[in-house]
Amino acid sequence: MPLHDRDSKSRPSSGDSPISLNSLVESFIQTARGLLDSAASSSAESSTLAESPKSALSPAPPTSSSFAQLIDHTSLKADATPQDIQRLCEEARTHQFATVCVNSCYVGLAKDLLKGSSVKPISVVGFPLGVCTTETKVFETRAAIEAGAQEIDMVIHAGALKSKNYEYVFRDIQQVVQAAAPVPVKVILETSTLDLNQKIAGAALSKAAGAAFVKTSTGFASGGASVEDVTLLRKIVGSEMGVKASGGIRTFEDAAKMIRAGANRIGASASVAMTLQSSSSVPAASATPSTTPSTGPGTAASGQTPAGSY
Amino acid sequence: MPLHDRDSKSRPSSGDSPISLNSLVESFIQTARGLLDSAASSSAESSTLAESPKSALSPAPPTSSSFAQLIDHTSLKADATPQDIQRLCEEARTHQFATVCVNSCYVGLAKDLLKGSSVKPISVVGFPLGVCTTETKVFETRAAIEAGAQEIDMVIHAGALKSKNYEYVFRDIQQVVQAAAPVPVKVILETSTLDLNQKIAGAALSKAAGAAFVKTSTGFASGGASVEDVTLLRKIVGSEMGVKASGGIRTFEDAAKMIRAGANRIGASASVAMTLQSSSSVPAASATPSTTPSTGPGTAASGQTPAGSY
Repeated sequence: MPLHDRDSKSRPSSGDSPISLNSLVESFIQTARGLLDSAASSSAESSTLAESPKSALSPAPPTSSSFAQLIDHTSLKADATPQDIQRLCEEARTHQFATVCVNSCYVGLAKDLLKGSSVKPISVVGFPLGVCTTETKVFETRAAIEAGAQEIDMVIHAGALKSKNYEYVFRDIQQVVQAAAPVPVKVILETSTLDLNQKIAGAALSKAAGAAFVKTSTGFASGGASVEDVTLLRKIVGSEMGVKASGGIRTFEDAAKMIRAGANRIGASASVAMTLQSSSSVPAASATPSTTPSTGPGTAASGQTPAGSY
Repeated sequence: MPLHDRDSKSRPSSGDSPISLNSLVESFIQTARGLLDSAASSSAESSTLAESPKSALSPAPPTSSSFAQLIDHTSLKADATPQDIQRLCEEARTHQFATVCVNSCYVGLAKDLLKGSSVKPISVVGFPLGVCTTETKVFETRAAIEAGAQEIDMVIHAGALKSKNYEYVFRDIQQVVQAAAPVPVKVILETSTLDLNQKIAGAALSKAAGAAFVKTSTGFASGGASVEDVTLLRKIVGSEMGVKASGGIRTFEDAAKMIRAGANRIGASASVAMTLQSSSSVPAASATPSTTPSTGPGTAASGQTPAGSY
């Protein structure tokens, strides 16, 4: 469905269905909000939520994964040089981070530099605004994977989400997911710019479209990850999907809060310092998604991480 | 040349040339700096600069183009909705702005909305970081033109520019220019993040690669257009090329300073207010580039525009 089809909101999501995707999403938002309210007014242990009541609110079993293996070691600035990417990859090798996350022009370089290590090169797509066309996102995804990307972090179309063009949002994600398969796709929601309904809809649509993760932030908006948003996203997507906290996470304490809130991946550039801090105290609980590739631990909540870039 | 060819800087720019592009650019930077210094120490009227001494420092004849016709009326936020684009296009029709500048997903909508008017839809590419691959920029350019874009505002690869991989920067621009032809291409330098040598090299490479304009800023970095940068760019590119000032231009006075400094296009979102302010006082001098499509007036200098988005 074209973004500029101004009658799109009144149309059903598929030819023969009498129910529109929009009314389904609106209904899901209302249901989720009701359940979130009731969960807030009773104890977390006895509450239920949406389709995945247990996984959403109770901690999954802890794993032995190390803190470093939850890290997407990240360099996304416009003026990052090949030398910066070289340093990033060396650090990732040394500390055995899960991945290095770079702009698509640097995936090939990262792949070369990471050869023989367990660290995966991953690429952002449609970054950081998410408002190129779906076709451009698909092209960039395919090219990044061809160059060696083992995960794709795409940015959601915020304009379509905010104008409730849910079918566009869904198709935009779905086409990237299909182009990437079997490579997993994370959907960056830029949560600090969304209201509660938009966060719920964005996460639900990401899950429905087959994404492997929802991710809070690009690091380029005024706000970054917050414990509240990570908690919410984990509740909405349940345990079958990953939640990546990113944007403004600069200390091990920041990261530990996100992990306790349900994040099972952390995007950061201060990863080395965080890992050194973590050697004294590693977060206890974990909630390993069962079906998501390349994920690790996560659970509970509190606090607010400062806004800003990676 | 791949971005991750770590030996690239020592190689010549083409197979049979004994002189490398890098040494040519370095030499040009030194020459330009010397001429800028000598120009600063004598009067502007009697100074000379680089290849286009006259056009660079003396005003071209004034034109009767209205202020509004210098404006790229701009909406590039990630959460711009179709309704926002509709308003943008209505304003552009009413005030007869040169163009509306949107993200590539909205070019088709803008084209539909601008039918029958003189206002052109134009698209940003690789926006705002400029660090997707060249192939992705080319793909996005072709798709935007197919959707109706009549100008392309692409972002330079800052990492390659800062690491002096001039051949990459040149090819990146050249391939977009070739894909777009005959549609003109502007190259966004993000001047607030560059030092003097980088500004000179970026502008010179844009000109050499066949771009129609250099443009100061995306509006998404910490700094925007400055009178000093516009003055410098006009000196470097001469009169055959356009200079677009963008980023943080919010009043007619801001715009008038840029035009006096040599800008012949203004990127802004506060265009309507600026145009209403302009009805009392229109900037006098102008420097119409002779060979550049869709351009208007410009000349002299002073002052600093606040940083920030469009």
